[in-house]
Amino acid sequence: MARAAAGAGARRRGAAAAGGAARGAAGAGAAAAPPTAARVFNFSAGPACMYEDVLAEAQREVLDYKGCGMSVMEMSHRGGDYSAIHDAAEADLRELMGVPEGYSVLMMQGGASLVFAGLPLNLTARADAVDYVVTGSWSKKAAQEAGKFCDTVNVVQGDNKSIPDPASWALTPGSKYVHLCDNETIQGVEFQGAPDVGGRTLCADVSSNFLSRPIDVSKYGVIYGGVQKNIGPAGLALVIVRDDLLGSPRADCPAMLDFSTLAEARSLYNTPNCWNIYMCGLVFRKLLDMGGLEAVARANAEKCAVVYGAIAESKGFYDCPVDEAVRSRMNVPFTIPSDAELEKAFISESTAAGLVNLKGHRSVGGMRASIYNAMPMQGVHDLAAFMKDFQARHQ
Amino acid sequence: MARAAAGAGARRRGAAAAGGAARGAAGAGAAAAPPTAARVFNFSAGPACMYEDVLAEAQREVLDYKGCGMSVMEMSHRGGDYSAIHDAAEADLRELMGVPEGYSVLMMQGGASLVFAGLPLNLTARADAVDYVVTGSWSKKAAQEAGKFCDTVNVVQGDNKSIPDPASWALTPGSKYVHLCDNETIQGVEFQGAPDVGGRTLCADVSSNFLSRPIDVSKYGVIYGGVQKNIGPAGLALVIVRDDLLGSPRADCPAMLDFSTLAEARSLYNTPNCWNIYMCGLVFRKLLDMGGLEAVARANAEKCAVVYGAIAESKGFYDCPVDEAVRSRMNVPFTIPSDAELEKAFISESTAAGLVNLKGHRSVGGMRASIYNAMPMQGVHDLAAFMKDFQARHQ
Repeated sequence: MARAAAGAGARRRGAAAAGGAARGAAGAGAAAAPPTAARVFNFSAGPACMYEDVLAEAQREVLDYKGCGMSVMEMSHRGGDYSAIHDAAEADLRELMGVPEGYSVLMMQGGASLVFAGLPLNLTARADAVDYVVTGSWSKKAAQEAGKFCDTVNVVQGDNKSIPDPASWALTPGSKYVHLCDNETIQGVEFQGAPDVGGRTLCADVSSNFLSRPIDVSKYGVIYGGVQKNIGPAGLALVIVRDDLLGSPRADCPAMLDFSTLAEARSLYNTPNCWNIYMCGLVFRKLLDMGGLEAVARANAEKCAVVYGAIAESKGFYDCPVDEAVRSRMNVPFTIPSDAELEKAFISESTAAGLVNLKGHRSVGGMRASIYNAMPMQGVHDLAAFMKDFQARHQ
Repeated sequence: MARAAAGAGARRRGAAAAGGAARGAAGAGAAAAPPTAARVFNFSAGPACMYEDVLAEAQREVLDYKGCGMSVMEMSHRGGDYSAIHDAAEADLRELMGVPEGYSVLMMQGGASLVFAGLPLNLTARADAVDYVVTGSWSKKAAQEAGKFCDTVNVVQGDNKSIPDPASWALTPGSKYVHLCDNETIQGVEFQGAPDVGGRTLCADVSSNFLSRPIDVSKYGVIYGGVQKNIGPAGLALVIVRDDLLGSPRADCPAMLDFSTLAEARSLYNTPNCWNIYMCGLVFRKLLDMGGLEAVARANAEKCAVVYGAIAESKGFYDCPVDEAVRSRMNVPFTIPSDAELEKAFISESTAAGLVNLKGHRSVGGMRASIYNAMPMQGVHDLAAFMKDFQARHQ
């Protein structure tokens, strides 16, 4: 993949364009490349980098999908061409994740934030209790939304840097479900597998580590997430729900949040986000062709080892605040403890070098490298080289 | 615009490929055209035809938006490049529609179907009464959804072919709002302006005639619609809401349906459907460049006159069941009263001729020509010619 900082560098390069060493070689060779090849390494937390060949395939088909004379964006969602896209996307997702019999796959709009309301509206009555394990910003937000719908939302509070031992969780007797965020995008705290919740229904928001590794779906009642971090463009949430949890929505559950209605209609109750489902379908197919989620997980393990390794090798110049045992393979937050001003220089110089969107979330500051499935290995090597170079120049 | 039936014709042409006369000339000249030029005339009711030059612009930018080194699908929704897209889309929509001060513009996910729930959740308490004027399938569906949230949903029932005189509507004293569907996509029944509702708040679903003509926004409390018919790809609903209606969502209104939350966050409460907003923004800009909604309305009046004219000239071979005074300029339903078998032949032959998606909605049968803003004049002329030719061959 030919990438160069030329495009972004030219636009973004500020007064202090001291960086760029790490991308110098690539930049030099890119003068003759077409504009579409001047791609940056995009460490955004979401929406985020996508596979370049997937984008290129979509580009070829924008005006005419496989000779049908129209764009996927223009197709009737009840027609044959779109139906084939829709069905293949669901089938490929099921194959990728090994979704067992007895689970429905829903393709919803509204993002995980809409599912936050959908969970209590479909799985509980107002008087029911639910448990929420809070390990960061997103699980906190999910718990707050549940509070609109359930009288008792029991929160197991973590410190946003570690995950409390599941044996210590004070879960509510008879609670309808236990909710967790499998990977906290902002704090970089990730579960390493499904915790034991004593036979309760486990619901997991996997927005930021969706399809990043094999997952034992049978251990969960609901697995859901927005696709805009690790899969495709924003505007779609995928919900994998065990069928025994369907059939009891509240009387005042909006139709578009009613898992049962969506399952019966196979996500075609109303017009779905067709383009997004098409894009995700291209990614599902690519992941299968790459060897499935085991192969993806191996690559992700290698990539995050490079970035965490760069932090460790800095001997404290860079710091990651997260407990080593639960560090995210997807989102690596780090700081420069000695000098917050240096963090600003890091952001501007890395941007100029074509390593973009490394600024940490506004709520926590610092830096964050989101290294999702589609981030090439070269991207993390370039980042590690830049970190080393930056340290040498500024320490 | 070079269009040819070649692509679709080859794939779709069935055993009875007698049609095609109307597209013969175009087809003959298209052999040397690139595949992306082999576009059909797409009469789908939604998702529907889009402007070819808008699609072409999007195509050029799929891998690299204006030299920033990434796709719009990959951009952080908090970054500068996307912010500019987002802000311009809202500003251009406001200019196009002449949205007065004191209205908020929301860009939501979930389609109009999600807004069906959003209206009562934001504008009413459970004990409140609301009025729904039912002139077809979509207004009926909106009324049914409201029934989940309001004790009293008063329905003013039409016959799906006409609009009852507003003076005859038995509206509820003190009702919180009057809801109507400005254009019934399935039945082809369209309001010709805002009815007098005695000072009540008027809420209108304009999904299928959005931006098809100037509209006096000040007469409405809420104007909303999915964009996938007359503007862009599926996956986005636009809501224009008068600000005095904000601020009183129900305590159990999901955050993603809370108009106040979305207005405060300028539709960035969570990750919006960025690609869709970008595509709609391209369309808004194009409509402004075309001269705004007056110019668009003139073209639409001409286009629908061609199709209704073809029906009238058939002397009863084709029939449109809708009262002439309220016929839709966007969706023209018609039948062949003499022989339902001929309707099947019409569908298959027109498809083979590159005039696709003319089948009526499964709930009503017959044919339907959806001739939204982006349908070129040539499309309706070709359809009229095909109708005449088909009648000559089959009557």
